[in-house]
Amino acid sequence: MQLPRVGIFGASGYAGIELTRLLATHPTAKLAFVASERHVGTSVAELTGVEGPTGALRYVSYGAAREAARTCAAVLLATPADVSLVLAAELVSAGLRVIDLSGAFRIADAAAFTAAYGHAAPPAALQGAAVYGLTELHREAIRGAQLVANPGCYPTAATLPLVPLLRAGLVTTDSIVVDAVSGASGAGRRATEDYSLVAMHDNVRAYKLLTHQHGPEIAQSLALATAGLPVDLTFVPKLLPIPRGILATITTRLRAKSDAVELTRVLRAAYEGEPFVRVLDRPEDVDLHRVIGTNLCAIAVACEPRAGGRVVLVSAIDNLVKGAAGQALQNLNLLLDLEETSGLTALRRFHP
Amino acid sequence: MQLPRVGIFGASGYAGIELTRLLATHPTAKLAFVASERHVGTSVAELTGVEGPTGALRYVSYGAAREAARTCAAVLLATPADVSLVLAAELVSAGLRVIDLSGAFRIADAAAFTAAYGHAAPPAALQGAAVYGLTELHREAIRGAQLVANPGCYPTAATLPLVPLLRAGLVTTDSIVVDAVSGASGAGRRATEDYSLVAMHDNVRAYKLLTHQHGPEIAQSLALATAGLPVDLTFVPKLLPIPRGILATITTRLRAKSDAVELTRVLRAAYEGEPFVRVLDRPEDVDLHRVIGTNLCAIAVACEPRAGGRVVLVSAIDNLVKGAAGQALQNLNLLLDLEETSGLTALRRFHP
Amino acid sequence: MQLPRVGIFGASGYAGIELTRLLATHPTAKLAFVASERHVGTSVAELTGVEGPTGALRYVSYGAAREAARTCAAVLLATPADVSLVLAAELVSAGLRVIDLSGAFRIADAAAFTAAYGHAAPPAALQGAAVYGLTELHREAIRGAQLVANPGCYPTAATLPLVPLLRAGLVTTDSIVVDAVSGASGAGRRATEDYSLVAMHDNVRAYKLLTHQHGPEIAQSLALATAGLPVDLTFVPKLLPIPRGILATITTRLRAKSDAVELTRVLRAAYEGEPFVRVLDRPEDVDLHRVIGTNLCAIAVACEPRAGGRVVLVSAIDNLVKGAAGQALQNLNLLLDLEETSGLTALRRFHP
Amino acid sequence: MQLPRVGIFGASGYAGIELTRLLATHPTAKLAFVASERHVGTSVAELTGVEGPTGALRYVSYGAAREAARTCAAVLLATPADVSLVLAAELVSAGLRVIDLSGAFRIADAAAFTAAYGHAAPPAALQGAAVYGLTELHREAIRGAQLVANPGCYPTAATLPLVPLLRAGLVTTDSIVVDAVSGASGAGRRATEDYSLVAMHDNVRAYKLLTHQHGPEIAQSLALATAGLPVDLTFVPKLLPIPRGILATITTRLRAKSDAVELTRVLRAAYEGEPFVRVLDRPEDVDLHRVIGTNLCAIAVACEPRAGGRVVLVSAIDNLVKGAAGQALQNLNLLLDLEETSGLTALRRFHP
Repeated sequence: MQLPRVGIFGASGYAGIELTRLLATHPTAKLAFVASERHVGTSVAELTGVEGPTGALRYVSYGAAREAARTCAAVLLATPADVSLVLAAELVSAGLRVIDLSGAFRIADAAAFTAAYGHAAPPAALQGAAVYGLTELHREAIRGAQLVANPGCYPTAATLPLVPLLRAGLVTTDSIVVDAVSGASGAGRRATEDYSLVAMHDNVRAYKLLTHQHGPEIAQSLALATAGLPVDLTFVPKLLPIPRGILATITTRLRAKSDAVELTRVLRAAYEGEPFVRVLDRPEDVDLHRVIGTNLCAIAVACEPRAGGRVVLVSAIDNLVKGAAGQALQNLNLLLDLEETSGLTALRRFHP
Repeated sequence: MQLPRVGIFGASGYAGIELTRLLATHPTAKLAFVASERHVGTSVAELTGVEGPTGALRYVSYGAAREAARTCAAVLLATPADVSLVLAAELVSAGLRVIDLSGAFRIADAAAFTAAYGHAAPPAALQGAAVYGLTELHREAIRGAQLVANPGCYPTAATLPLVPLLRAGLVTTDSIVVDAVSGASGAGRRATEDYSLVAMHDNVRAYKLLTHQHGPEIAQSLALATAGLPVDLTFVPKLLPIPRGILATITTRLRAKSDAVELTRVLRAAYEGEPFVRVLDRPEDVDLHRVIGTNLCAIAVACEPRAGGRVVLVSAIDNLVKGAAGQALQNLNLLLDLEETSGLTALRRFHP
Repeated sequence: MQLPRVGIFGASGYAGIELTRLLATHPTAKLAFVASERHVGTSVAELTGVEGPTGALRYVSYGAAREAARTCAAVLLATPADVSLVLAAELVSAGLRVIDLSGAFRIADAAAFTAAYGHAAPPAALQGAAVYGLTELHREAIRGAQLVANPGCYPTAATLPLVPLLRAGLVTTDSIVVDAVSGASGAGRRATEDYSLVAMHDNVRAYKLLTHQHGPEIAQSLALATAGLPVDLTFVPKLLPIPRGILATITTRLRAKSDAVELTRVLRAAYEGEPFVRVLDRPEDVDLHRVIGTNLCAIAVACEPRAGGRVVLVSAIDNLVKGAAGQALQNLNLLLDLEETSGLTALRRFHP
Repeated sequence: MQLPRVGIFGASGYAGIELTRLLATHPTAKLAFVASERHVGTSVAELTGVEGPTGALRYVSYGAAREAARTCAAVLLATPADVSLVLAAELVSAGLRVIDLSGAFRIADAAAFTAAYGHAAPPAALQGAAVYGLTELHREAIRGAQLVANPGCYPTAATLPLVPLLRAGLVTTDSIVVDAVSGASGAGRRATEDYSLVAMHDNVRAYKLLTHQHGPEIAQSLALATAGLPVDLTFVPKLLPIPRGILATITTRLRAKSDAVELTRVLRAAYEGEPFVRVLDRPEDVDLHRVIGTNLCAIAVACEPRAGGRVVLVSAIDNLVKGAAGQALQNLNLLLDLEETSGLTALRRFHP
């Protein structure tokens, strides 16, 4: 039997490399091409350490990749948003199914998009076709999608814990704060002094305060999953001197008397049977070591047991896996009608 | 001229060692004794790397230190809260002036204290004599104090940026979130697997959510500096895989139309002439490298320029200096009627 | 078809956990029990993050494990040397095949063993039965072994690059220096202040100079693979503030005129077809990122192209994989007559 | 009394910034100018965090600095070797005294220099005037020098421990290996992907094997201090994922029977009274924490107590202080006939 073929554009960034490594051991899909204008001719083995047939592939130009894409069941874009905009338009109109890991198609409102990204939004028709790919929340829509907007790392970490409590009407929506610390790979490959080891080591800073493009994405993601519940939130991202991982803490309040046990039960019910969400009892157990190297999102909640009581949700993901390449693979599996966990079950926690 | 003599109890924890190093080069005070039950007989040089006369001192027992304290102008306690409680009672009743770096005297309300610390609060008379030692805000009271409760690291980082805006009535008080990440030295010396390099490296976790003893201290510290303005806040502490530094982000909202320029101006006016507070224009510039090794608190603000607009304050301190030993020295200088910056001017930023 | 069953004693140290994770996805062997006196009753999922059937296993006592071992095709010991000594004696005499990850059976000479380990050497008969398990060099002996002494991490990193050049008579043997830096997991789980993040972070130190038990093991390992060539070496181990990985640099001299190209060719010929050894052209490419998370040993050589010219070999391994659990699995596969790479092919380079 | 004035060219690299910070608190010399073509007009405070009068200085062009230099008692060059070559020639011929922190004047032999640095050596007359500035070993020559070649970081760490044992004829000279691990600031400011946090974190690699320019400098430095004893050494440098510090281990052998106690005694006698060398009893105590932030070189020795016994020397320095700016200040003090420790006594160990 012929395995479905897929290709990657932009295969040399951190997310592209992670995707390549995941697809290299995917048992029911075949990586047919990897495109990188910067590395044309280089072998995949050299950049990624992947061995075997996938390692023997060589990066091709975007031009060559456009040809190769025709034989593919789906194409993944790990390109910057402005490049994704152009490529997706072209590939979709050629009838191909596309999963885009950039932010190009994540924000439906054109004005909000332009404010966040600083350039023109996608054509309305194309944007209208895009399905927001937070797998656990939009699984059925993703299965049939022509174009999947794979979620941002922070929005994934913020949406999964909040949505079940919002849907159940348990927490207030008017002054949510999402504070999240991220490893440096979240900022992408960088060749500047600011991102050098000497400048970043032992250092922490908040960045893009009140202007980060994931702020409106989180708001939209919550609205999308709660039938438009108007959520007012403040997003505070911080950069850590570690390579991988996001830990988000989300503060809100109870609308009526409840407690951590009930909130945990609601979260657990919402994600029962989910292969990649783990609801834990103790917030201290939601640490980065638990998720780094895996496609898991770990969640727990602390709560003052009274009406109006403070609520703190904690969630953790590996920004390059559940926050990027891993979730893209989940979505690819849905598109291709494969087992959703295919290619993701062998991922192992890395830290001792 | 005879320099005033001071002594330290609990001189072998991180704060005690930092204090010892600072006092070793203090030009107008003399470290007369260092007490550590665990290290009696060991030289200060061995534990701290300090050379010269201070390095030649040897740790003495608390018993011996009680004797030595009689000749001192002031005594610093870098002991756990329960030990400080006993020592301070005894030393104060012997007429000595005491600066306590633990939390023993920071929370005036006895019930709140017991809830936070899990043991009985100080006797009311003693607690009543304690002055909360956030130097910039309570300078005059500190000068005359018999007992100074040196502030916690998180409360220092949270109070300094917020107070001027609260005093000016510029921001709302009903749903403030203080999120703060801290280096591991903030948790004190630890000999457990949880605090081993392998367990902590590349890891982050939130801890003591809604129960951390610095939560009520921050609330009280804000109330104290704002004539009892009722502030409702959520405190979210996180532990980082680095040794030193605290970065706090504080979210609130504008009460009326304003902007970052005005808020910055108010902050700058409040701290004009302060030797250890720096108000910066850009929140991204408030990073740990700017403060580690120094007694500085760096502050900046981001703001949506409309009534009700989101406000994010950022502050950074070295938790062992401005968050502990450095501020204790500021307070000691006030007690002893020395130049407030004495012994603190040679501190240098450590990172390149 | 029934998969061969295996068990692990000492399953809660770093090597034991790594072994457990590897066996959890081993396609042709089944982990039947995990024994840990400290964690009896705890689920494997809780300690290791492994999910599925292996995660559902619970740690059993050594007593219970002795029973369970009877149904196993082989048993792995990830116990301290003194415990391994006792367990291996018992299990081998019960007819079981054993792979021991400690140093208990690595040093054949009883006096050298006692000098290195500080306690009595194994009984001569048992020691005589032990095969030194450096897979690439002793594959055939391992296949038939009753007891495999799985090599130490440093000896693995030192032996693989040196042996082909020693066998070919290309380098001198009289003053070899093996300098190796290791991540902290190499020292095992530690709950002391010395191994805390604050004490180790940004720190490096040499340790056990001229007394480290891997010094004689390296010498014996080289002798074993070179038919007793008398090698005189100095071993210098250093501890790094990172969790994983060993980088070894080995200095010696050319016996006759040669160059890096020839030495590289000899190394490549020696390891042609080896699934887990990679000979690279450039020493700078042999870094930890290339091997962490994998069972690979990467090797390269620098050389002054003249008789007597200086030679520096560089090698890198993941100390917990090729330096411990991964190599143990290679050996287990040989014992059980499985594909040597079984359970090791899905390992992926971790770093972006 | 007028303090002697000094200036710095190349004040924006790591060594230049460290120098600036040190001179800012120098009690008996005054920093008159800082020159940086890249940062003309920027304040010293902005780049270095230094406050007060030195912080208020602004970087000037090299042209303006040439003028300002005329009023200075000495000038420090923290410029690349090729720039130092030109500047030193000009400044020396204008009668100024110069301390150069680059490698431009460290290697006396022109052919060896060109092999190491890849460009033409200094004019013989100028090179002839240069004094190698390893303070402890060439103090008197430095006092009278017109041009001081401030030593490299690795050569400082390698020379100080070896010289006393070589002078005493205690160790062999024919196969010394100097292995040294260094923090990333040793490679200077870098804005490339290779030096990014994500690329370097948790990574280690050897680099410039057998070609590093500090190899011949170490050989010459040893020869210089031992009246030309012909020393044959191999230098193996490795780059660590930390910002600061060098730990060197040096292997050689005893010429006659001796032991660690005797070697330690010889080292201690050699450096008795030295303000910045500390000979310790135990090699494990020579770690980076002991020296980072200070101008100290810590040294200890391990030894097999028999003729021909292996010897391992360990030394540690802060590469930016004793390995660069701190030693430059020691030398400056000698040039200006100031107390040698002036400006260096307040340096404190940084780590808890």
